[in-house]
Order: sequence, then structure tokens, then C-alpha cells
Amino acid sequence: MALKVYLAGPEVFLPDARAQLDRKIALTRAAGLVPLAPGDLIIPEAPTPHARGLAISEGDEKLTDEADAIIANLTPFRGIAADVGTVFELGYMCGRGKIVYAYSNVADDHYARTLAHYGGVTERDASGRERGPDGLSIEDFGMVENLMLDGGVERRGGTMVVRAVAEAHRATDTEAFEKCLSLLAARGG
Amino acid sequence: MALKVYLAGPEVFLPDARAQLDRKIALTRAAGLVPLAPGDLIIPEAPTPHARGLAISEGDEKLTDEADAIIANLTPFRGIAADVGTVFELGYMCGRGKIVYAYSNVADDHYARTLAHYGGVTERDASGRERGPDGLSIEDFGMVENLMLDGGVERRGGTMVVRAVAEAHRATDTEAFEKCLSLLAARGG
Repeated sequence: MALKVYLAGPEVFLPDARAQLDRKIALTRAAGLVPLAPGDLIIPEAPTPHARGLAISEGDEKLTDEADAIIANLTPFRGIAADVGTVFELGYMCGRGKIVYAYSNVADDHYARTLAHYGGVTERDASGRERGPDGLSIEDFGMVENLMLDGGVERRGGTMVVRAVAEAHRATDTEAFEKCLSLLAARGG
Repeated sequence: MALKVYLAGPEVFLPDARAQLDRKIALTRAAGLVPLAPGDLIIPEAPTPHARGLAISEGDEKLTDEADAIIANLTPFRGIAADVGTVFELGYMCGRGKIVYAYSNVADDHYARTLAHYGGVTERDASGRERGPDGLSIEDFGMVENLMLDGGVERRGGTMVVRAVAEAHRATDTEAFEKCLSLLAARGG
């Protein structure tokens, strides 16, 4: 049986969300895998925006429950970190013991992005720990994201694929995604 | 048996992390619950920062596996969204079918924070959807965070507690956390 893969990422917010999701769906099929994408959901009518939000959450979770694996797009979103909806889904799939892969189209790692957030202005505290001007400590574990994400993926045998993509194409470039697909397909169903 | 609660949040990055975690631990005990906090971990020596990151990830996940419930501090962290490490843990606990509560010390909801991210400059596309200058659609479901987080908590019978806390005390105020504790304690073991 071909593996079912949940395609997690902030593509749903793009102006051409449908086209981008269709592209990822086609690539997934071409890799011999079965795509499950959030944009495929038919959400029943809901009386309030809040109720609609809950219905989408329920539908998305059901899709992840159906999936054997996830490929999470962790490219920074509206800031220096990954989209929290995608991160929730990655954590959820780790909790369910599923196969997990992830990628980012930004090559700067968690440490470099955090430094940039502080404009490069950091200091060492009495114990030698690096901190931003707000006092928050800055982690440098040579990881793509917060260690719970990298750890969650790597300790389960998955891979964090990273690629430097020019800003104009960061939201849509699929090379890192395709690398995840081929690693997952090689792993077999 | 008293419920074991994992105390998730970015407190570990604070200058007085130990004191803040100890405060949350004491409050949890006072509520008749058993606290499990990431700061309690003894991490074995590791040959590289990356290996150390993996060891911390493993230790933290084991703590969450021991816990019956999570209280996740989703107060925005280095930007407009929650700390992704905490979000991973919230998703993980949802995936494991645990009891989930969360809180934020910022009253502005997801929509208001996203508007602020764009400096209030948004537009409607042809279908009437609101978008930022970068083309990304802006969700307004009247939710605290991305709908996967609110939905994950609410659909499991948990609560997202929100409180407006002055910026100077946002990282350390525990009133919303205490509200989660009392809701959880009332639920019983």
C-alpha cells in the first residue's frame, strides 16, 4: 500500500493557494505516494466564524489521522519562525507515532534568524549564556528550528531538508519538498 | 491519583527561568496537581550542540509522555505568534489524547496581531478575502491563535484563557496560568 502523506504548510494562505496545493499534490502522486492536503476539505456551514474555525480544525485533524506520514513546510512565516498551525500538526503527528519529514526554504538556521531578530545585538550573562536585549536566551544547537521540532523529526528517523531559496520564490519553491518526497518514497510503504 | 501536568512555555528562556519555573511548580502543587517542568531535566553530556539539542528534545518528550495534561503558555514570543517549541508540545499532547489547556497574556487575538504585523495595511482580493501586502490571507475566526491550536484545545474540552497583561509583566504574570490550573483541578483526576 502506498503511504498516505499529509501536506502541511502555510500554502493555504497564498493568493494562488489552490494552484500551489495542486502542484504539491501532483508531485506527491508522481513520487508514488498518496497526498492528503488541507485545501481538499469540504467544510460544512457553520453559524459563526469561531464555529467555522473549529470545523476546519476538526477536518484537518481527521486528515492527519488518516495519514501515515507528514511533510511539514517549516519555512519562516510572518516572522522568524515556522507557521504555528503547521508546527501543531507536526507535533500532533509525532504524538501519533507517524512518519515525519520537514523542510525549510530559508537556509539561515534558528540561531541566525534569532540574531537577525535582535539586529545582531546580543550580550553574554554572568554564566556566559547569550541573550537578546529583552533578556531572552538564544539557543544555538545548530538546528533549523526550535529543538523540539528538529528533535521530533530526527529522532524518528525523518529529515529536516533545508534549501536557500530567493525570497521571491520562498513560498512556492518545491525542491526541498521534493527531496522529502523522495526520502519518504525510498523508505517504502 | 492527582493529575500530572506538563508546564509548557518559553519561561526556560527568561533570565530568571529557574525562579519562574519554581513559581509555576509551587502554584501547580498548591492546586493539588503534580507539576512536570522542562527545567527539571538532567541532560546527559553530549559531544556536540546538535546532539545536546536532540537529548533535550528526548527528555522533554519523555516528560510529556509521563504527563496526563498540559498547560501551554501561548503568549506571543519573538513576534506575533506563540513559541513554536510550546506549540509542538501542545500538538504532541493532542496527538496523544491528553488533557489540554492553554493561555496567553496578550489580549489581542490572532487577527488583531496579524493586522498589527502589517501595520494595519490590508486589502480585499476579488473574492473578498482580506490579505496583507505580501498577498497572504488573514484569518479572522475570533481565535487566540491559529485555528489548529484553539481547535485542538477547545474540541478536547480544554480552555484557552486570555488575559491582558502589561508588557513588562507578560512573560511572568501567572494569573491566566492559575485560571488554567483551577479549571484543570475542578475537572478532577
